[in-house]
Amino acid sequence: MYTNQNLEASQRQKPLQTSVITLLSDFGDHDVYVGVIKGVIAQINPKLAVVDLTHQIPPQNIAAGRFCLMNAYAYFPVGTVHVAVVDPGVGSRRRAIAVEFAQGFLVGPDNGIFSGVLSQSPAIAAVELTNLNYWRTPKPSKTFHGRDIFAPVAAHLASGVPFKQLGQEIDPATLVQMNISSCNQTANGMVGYIQYIDHFGNLVSNIPGSYVQGKTWYVQVAGLTIPGCETYADVEVGEAIALVGSHGWIEIAINSANAHSQLQINLQDELLVSQTEINK
Amino acid sequence: MYTNQNLEASQRQKPLQTSVITLLSDFGDHDVYVGVIKGVIAQINPKLAVVDLTHQIPPQNIAAGRFCLMNAYAYFPVGTVHVAVVDPGVGSRRRAIAVEFAQGFLVGPDNGIFSGVLSQSPAIAAVELTNLNYWRTPKPSKTFHGRDIFAPVAAHLASGVPFKQLGQEIDPATLVQMNISSCNQTANGMVGYIQYIDHFGNLVSNIPGSYVQGKTWYVQVAGLTIPGCETYADVEVGEAIALVGSHGWIEIAINSANAHSQLQINLQDELLVSQTEINK
Amino acid sequence: MYTNQNLEASQRQKPLQTSVITLLSDFGDHDVYVGVIKGVIAQINPKLAVVDLTHQIPPQNIAAGRFCLMNAYAYFPVGTVHVAVVDPGVGSRRRAIAVEFAQGFLVGPDNGIFSGVLSQSPAIAAVELTNLNYWRTPKPSKTFHGRDIFAPVAAHLASGVPFKQLGQEIDPATLVQMNISSCNQTANGMVGYIQYIDHFGNLVSNIPGSYVQGKTWYVQVAGLTIPGCETYADVEVGEAIALVGSHGWIEIAINSANAHSQLQINLQDELLVSQTEINK
Repeated sequence: MYTNQNLEASQRQKPLQTSVITLLSDFGDHDVYVGVIKGVIAQINPKLAVVDLTHQIPPQNIAAGRFCLMNAYAYFPVGTVHVAVVDPGVGSRRRAIAVEFAQGFLVGPDNGIFSGVLSQSPAIAAVELTNLNYWRTPKPSKTFHGRDIFAPVAAHLASGVPFKQLGQEIDPATLVQMNISSCNQTANGMVGYIQYIDHFGNLVSNIPGSYVQGKTWYVQVAGLTIPGCETYADVEVGEAIALVGSHGWIEIAINSANAHSQLQINLQDELLVSQTEINK
Repeated sequence: MYTNQNLEASQRQKPLQTSVITLLSDFGDHDVYVGVIKGVIAQINPKLAVVDLTHQIPPQNIAAGRFCLMNAYAYFPVGTVHVAVVDPGVGSRRRAIAVEFAQGFLVGPDNGIFSGVLSQSPAIAAVELTNLNYWRTPKPSKTFHGRDIFAPVAAHLASGVPFKQLGQEIDPATLVQMNISSCNQTANGMVGYIQYIDHFGNLVSNIPGSYVQGKTWYVQVAGLTIPGCETYADVEVGEAIALVGSHGWIEIAINSANAHSQLQINLQDELLVSQTEINK
Repeated sequence: MYTNQNLEASQRQKPLQTSVITLLSDFGDHDVYVGVIKGVIAQINPKLAVVDLTHQIPPQNIAAGRFCLMNAYAYFPVGTVHVAVVDPGVGSRRRAIAVEFAQGFLVGPDNGIFSGVLSQSPAIAAVELTNLNYWRTPKPSKTFHGRDIFAPVAAHLASGVPFKQLGQEIDPATLVQMNISSCNQTANGMVGYIQYIDHFGNLVSNIPGSYVQGKTWYVQVAGLTIPGCETYADVEVGEAIALVGSHGWIEIAINSANAHSQLQINLQDELLVSQTEINK
């Protein structure tokens, strides 16, 4: 089914592997942008499996895209091609890139969106997407590289095109980093902040769960002291709780309710995780 | 492609069947929770077809999940594995289960979410998901059994693992029921209530359409008398109508508008369906 | 896998082609309507690839559905079957149709939703869907032809059933058109209007980008003069810009912000595109 004339004869003879493609973007679901990307992939290879991670990243919010991709990639088969398009610099001089890492490949703009994944699993190699043979058209739209560059490159890569054919090799050390403040150990405990709020209103901090493993712990936030527990149902319905979320970060929740709206805690708000209860 | 080392040799030799998996949850679409579930399924068997029923069940609303699944399962191929994750009791002592019924399989928490399906098509057998070989990890997250238990179990089941290998058999009579009030025949007609409101604002009652089949009928609700008709276009644009919805329940709608917002009728509001027009 | 008993023996012997099916509707994502449609398709042929274009067309808004489909179809493989269900006249006398055109097939109600696609790529043939063998049931719901007629017809067509078996041939000239006002050349430039607003708040006009190709140009709208550029990043963050969008229409945007909410420009608002800057 995969029929790219750009492949050399030797490549064409080999049985092609196919791998999964994931898509993450800020495109939302009201327009046909995501559908069009899937059409472009199907034009290249209709047998590829395409999985949506989410298209509801807030517009132009690279940090949220970075967080979501970092918490998802590890659950996919080795060799998966992850396409991320949160791309306010589309059409400017920001590079279009692909990165090879132990679990698979990353395709998208060089704006830091992959820096979370790569902080956990370093880049093995990187290319700038300069080989027009794998673009949808040599004259791509200046506003929709997802359709004209990233999706077709991902489809070719997932169909077996060798990574280094996609363009000029670049030094992974030159990839754009996103500066995310880390949490800090203080005399009272670990100080961090809310880095993400999910659909349920759970408040996800940037403090890793490993900090509290096997300990009795508490969170101080917004004047409240919240006990560290294991799961929502450890407290009564409507009560606040702190726990290690499924993504591995310490989070604040309310059993069967929305902690974000009820506790009035927001993105970037500070929290303190300590092993001794204070002010209670 | 399906490569579970847990399978016995005899099982591994057989050509594996594959069936469709459906997903229903309250996860929404802003996070990567659903994408991660699909990644876990693809890690086990990337050839499986996964269909989203909906992920917009209101958070922790088991009754809405029950209603949606009950109205969807019959349209899927026999053998389909339906995964439902509306799971406020995750990590508590509620059981994780799989159920075999005539049309396929159900996988999720034992909290009543399957009781609508099973009221229409009884359980043939049930298991508690105690066989850790089919979990993603023997130490699952306490807050995300969708990822660590339900999705991998469903992927194995859809790939041909025998149902009874999934865990300890339990008596289907012990599965949690959800008490849903039924409609009541009175001297004036059938009294029911609004059990669901859809995306269009159509108000779906709990009175089956069979009650009015072949009859002239009216609905009394919120001080209004609304004629029973066959389709939206039977009345002028903007007019209220009662009809038997595609799911088989009597519903109240407005042609080309939103009955929920315009008529100010809400979930649980009572209605009366009668064969004689009253107060008009 | 494809197992329709309706096929004649000769047809059944042939290896069946399969093609992609796309879905576009106003069903939203809160209910199971879209999932049920996919179930019906899987019952007929579980190997078919189904791609969602969008299900967030505003309820009953045929014009928005027409615009979205017109901007998506060209990115899919030849032979793709596009199902569009924005269908306020369901159950009335509006015809259920399928249309063959150079790039594939269209299946849905005859209400003008396909008139945008067909204005770009004319119909080769059309049928009214009168052959009940390809419906899900000979007694379809009066309110959900997507499930009972359009989806099963599309699944059979995508599985290789000859187009003309689907029903009685009709003259493509009799298909319902949607009257969309076009843009007008005036002494001052081209006058058009906002025909669509996307998820990012970008304001898409009905003036084709070809009008400004290779020229210096400006847009006059809502008292503002906005320069024509090439991409969002050509201006500072927060500044308004006009450009040719990826769909080929002139659009108004703000770099990294929402032009719809910030400029207070709405659907149907008029704009003037000229090659000379006025009033600045």
